[in-house]
Amino acid sequence: MKPGIPKGTRDFGPEQVLKRNYIFDTIKQVFIKYGYQPIETPTIELLSTLTGKYGEEGDRLLFRVLKRGDKLAKSLENQPSANDLAEEGLRYDLTVPFARYVVMNQQYLTFPFKRYQIQPVWRADRPQRGRYREFYQCDVDVIGSGLPLYGAEMAQIYDDLFTKLGIDVIIKINNRKILAGIAEVAGISEQFVDMTIAIDKLDKIGIEGVRQEMQARGIPANAIDKVAQLLQIATPADLKPLLASSATGAAGIEEVAQVFDFLETSTTQEVQFDVTLARGLNYYTGCIFEVQAKNVQMGSIGGGGRYDDLTGIFGLKGVSGVGVSFGAERIYDVMEELQLFPSDTASSLQILFIAFDATTHRFAFQCLQSVRAAGIHAELYPDPGNLKKQMKYANSRHVPYVALIGEAEMTNGQLTLKDMVTGEQASLLLTDIILKIQRRT
Amino acid sequence: MKPGIPKGTRDFGPEQVLKRNYIFDTIKQVFIKYGYQPIETPTIELLSTLTGKYGEEGDRLLFRVLKRGDKLAKSLENQPSANDLAEEGLRYDLTVPFARYVVMNQQYLTFPFKRYQIQPVWRADRPQRGRYREFYQCDVDVIGSGLPLYGAEMAQIYDDLFTKLGIDVIIKINNRKILAGIAEVAGISEQFVDMTIAIDKLDKIGIEGVRQEMQARGIPANAIDKVAQLLQIATPADLKPLLASSATGAAGIEEVAQVFDFLETSTTQEVQFDVTLARGLNYYTGCIFEVQAKNVQMGSIGGGGRYDDLTGIFGLKGVSGVGVSFGAERIYDVMEELQLFPSDTASSLQILFIAFDATTHRFAFQCLQSVRAAGIHAELYPDPGNLKKQMKYANSRHVPYVALIGEAEMTNGQLTLKDMVTGEQASLLLTDIILKIQRRT
Repeated sequence: MKPGIPKGTRDFGPEQVLKRNYIFDTIKQVFIKYGYQPIETPTIELLSTLTGKYGEEGDRLLFRVLKRGDKLAKSLENQPSANDLAEEGLRYDLTVPFARYVVMNQQYLTFPFKRYQIQPVWRADRPQRGRYREFYQCDVDVIGSGLPLYGAEMAQIYDDLFTKLGIDVIIKINNRKILAGIAEVAGISEQFVDMTIAIDKLDKIGIEGVRQEMQARGIPANAIDKVAQLLQIATPADLKPLLASSATGAAGIEEVAQVFDFLETSTTQEVQFDVTLARGLNYYTGCIFEVQAKNVQMGSIGGGGRYDDLTGIFGLKGVSGVGVSFGAERIYDVMEELQLFPSDTASSLQILFIAFDATTHRFAFQCLQSVRAAGIHAELYPDPGNLKKQMKYANSRHVPYVALIGEAEMTNGQLTLKDMVTGEQASLLLTDIILKIQRRT
Repeated sequence: MKPGIPKGTRDFGPEQVLKRNYIFDTIKQVFIKYGYQPIETPTIELLSTLTGKYGEEGDRLLFRVLKRGDKLAKSLENQPSANDLAEEGLRYDLTVPFARYVVMNQQYLTFPFKRYQIQPVWRADRPQRGRYREFYQCDVDVIGSGLPLYGAEMAQIYDDLFTKLGIDVIIKINNRKILAGIAEVAGISEQFVDMTIAIDKLDKIGIEGVRQEMQARGIPANAIDKVAQLLQIATPADLKPLLASSATGAAGIEEVAQVFDFLETSTTQEVQFDVTLARGLNYYTGCIFEVQAKNVQMGSIGGGGRYDDLTGIFGLKGVSGVGVSFGAERIYDVMEELQLFPSDTASSLQILFIAFDATTHRFAFQCLQSVRAAGIHAELYPDPGNLKKQMKYANSRHVPYVALIGEAEMTNGQLTLKDMVTGEQASLLLTDIILKIQRRT
C-alpha cells in the first residue's frame, strides 16, 4: 500500500514549520504588544453553529463529521439525506466561533475585549495553487467598542507587523459610510449592495467592467456616471464637499479623518485613503482596511474593518467591534518570493559533535552535556567513525558549527571547531566554543 | 438559539491559552536544544492510513469526515453502510501520521531523523473528567537509530523538561527484552503478551491481582510464582544472574546498563530501574520509559520506548527508533494543582494608560506609542473619564502597572504610575516608566 494524504492538505517538514512559526510568532508578539489576548476554540463545532453563516457556497464547502454508533445506525435505517448523517463540522473560519465564544462567555468577559486567534480552518474548496483545504487564519478583534482609536490601532498593527517582517506594503483605508454616501448622492441608496459588489471587483475588471456590472445590476446610467466620478476622488478632504448632502457620507469622512489624525506620522508603511476599497462582506459598517504587498503580485495579504452586529446571530445584539485578519499563507509565499526569511530560520541546530571512535564518542557525549546545559542547541552523531557520513549529516542539518573530536582533542581538551559557512577550522577549549556560539546569536 | 459546543470539546480563554502555551513553549525549547526538528501533518488523513492501526476500539473511536457532493449522492443511492460514507478521518494520534510521513519522504530525509510534533488529536471517547475528544499530544522521536545513546537522551529530555517546569518526577526505565527474559526463564515465552498485559495492570490491581490475571490467562502456577519473584528484584545487577540463561534477557539488562551508564550523575530528577514497568503497546522492543509526578496523584505524565518496525505498516521495513511523549493535558493539571505556573503567565499586558478627558486621552495615546515602540505590551483604555470603570478593566486584565494621566501630568510630563500589586503611586517621567518596566522583566 502506497500511503498518501487527502487532496488539498499538506505535510510540513522542519524547514517549513520553522519558517511558518517565524511568521506566527512575529504576529503573536505584535498582537500581545498591542494588548490583545489569545483564545482558542475547538476544531469541531456543532453544525447549528456553522450552517447558514457563510451563505449557500459556504454550507456546501463545510467539512461535516459523520455521526457514530447508535445515532448513525438509526439514521441509516430510513433513506437518510446528507443532513441526517452529521451534527458536527470543522471550523470554517475564526469569526463565527469567536462570536459564539463571546456570547457564551459574556458574563466573564470585561469589555472592550481584545482577542487574537491563530488556528487552522477547513474548506472543501477545489484545491489549486495557493488554495488549500486546511489553512491557518490569524484574526485580531476588539469587541465592545468601535471607536476610531481602534481603527487606527488596526492600521498600526499592520504597519508594525509588516515592518518587522520586512515586507513593504500599502495599507488602504476606506469607510462603508462613505460608500453609502456615494450611493445616496447618486440616488441609488436602495442599490447600495449592488454598487459595492461591483466596486469590489475593480482590481480585477477595471472601471469599465465596474460600470458594466452596475448597468447589468439595473443601476441607471446617470447614477453610474456619478458613482464613477466620485470614485476618482483621492482624498477625504476633496470628497467632503461632494458628499455634504449625505449625513451618512459626512460621518464616514469624519471617521476616516479621525483614524488618520490618530496615525499622524507614526507609521513606517504607506497608509492610503482609497475610496474604491469596498470589501465584499456586508457586515462591515464603518472603516475598512486592506493591505497589499508592494513588490510582488499577490492580491490582498490582510483586510478587515468595523462591524456592529457580529454576535447578533447568537442572540447578543448591538455589540460593535473592529477586527482585521492576516493572510498567513500568502505572507509565507511573499516572504519566500522576496527571500525575506532570516537565514538562520531554516536551522535550529547550533553545533554538531562528531567523534572518531567509541572512546572519543563517550568524551563527546560529556561535551554535549556541557553545551546543552549552557542552553545551546546541540547534537552528537550517534555512530562514531565514518567521517564522510557524519559530515553529510551535518550538511543536511544546515548546522553552522561542527566540533570534531579525535584522540588528540580528547587528550589536550582543545576541540577542532569547523565553521561550516567559511570552512575555517580552529582549536578551541569547550568553554570558548560555548562563548563563541552564545555571542553569535 | 442558545449556542453550545460539541461534547468533549473545550473553548480556551486567554489565561488558559497563555498557560498552555507556557507548557508547549517550554517543551519545544527542550526538544530543539536536543536537536529535534518540528514537523506538522494534516488534521484530515485518508481512512486507509488510519483504520486498522489502533485496534477495533480505535477504529470505533475515529472521527470520520462525511463525503461531499456527487460522491456522497452516489453513496446514498444504495443503502449505504457507515464505511461507504467516509474516505477521510481526523488524526487519532501523532505516531501513525509520523510513520506515513517518514515513508512518503524517505528520499528527502537524512537519518537518524530527529523530529518532534505538537498537535491536537481526536478520539470519540466517552468524555469524563480529564478526558476530552480533542486534546494535544507532544511526541519526540528519533528514527533510523535505536542506540542506547538515544534511550539516555529521552531520559535526559524528561529530566530537563520537568526540572524546567518545576515538577518533581520519577523517571522509570525498563526493557521489553528483560520482560521477555523473565517469560523465558519462567518457561512461558509463548505467553509473553499475556504476561505483560497482566503486569501492566500492577499499579491498578496490585501483585495479587496480577497473579489472578495471569492465572485467568492460563499461565501455570509455578510460572506465576517465578514471575512474581523476579518482579521483586530492584536492580539490573541483581537481576543479571537470575536471567543468565536467557540471551534476550541478558541483552535487555545490558541495554539498560548502557542507558544508566550514559546518564551517570547528569540528571536532576530521580531515574529508577523498574522491572514491573511493562507499557501496554506491543510495538516496543527495547528500553521503555514512564514518568510519574511525585507530589500529586495523576498516573503517568509521559512514556515511550524503543521500537523496531514503526514504518512497516506503510511498507518501509526494519527501521528502528526511540520515542517518548508528554501528557500535556495532565501536565497542565499537575501544574495547576501544585501552583507551578509563574505568576505572570496569566497576564500578557504590562501597562494600561488611563486618561481623564479627551485632551489627556490624546496625550496618553502618544505616550502609548513610545511605550510600545520600546517593546512593552501596552494599552490605552478607549473611553476617558470614568475612573472606576477604567480601574475595573485594569483589574480584570491583571495588569501590573497603571499610568494615570490628568491635566497636571500632561503639563509637567510626570505621569502617575500606580503599582497594582502594592498599591503604591509614584510620579515618573515616561522614560523612567519604560526603564522600570523593562528592568522588571
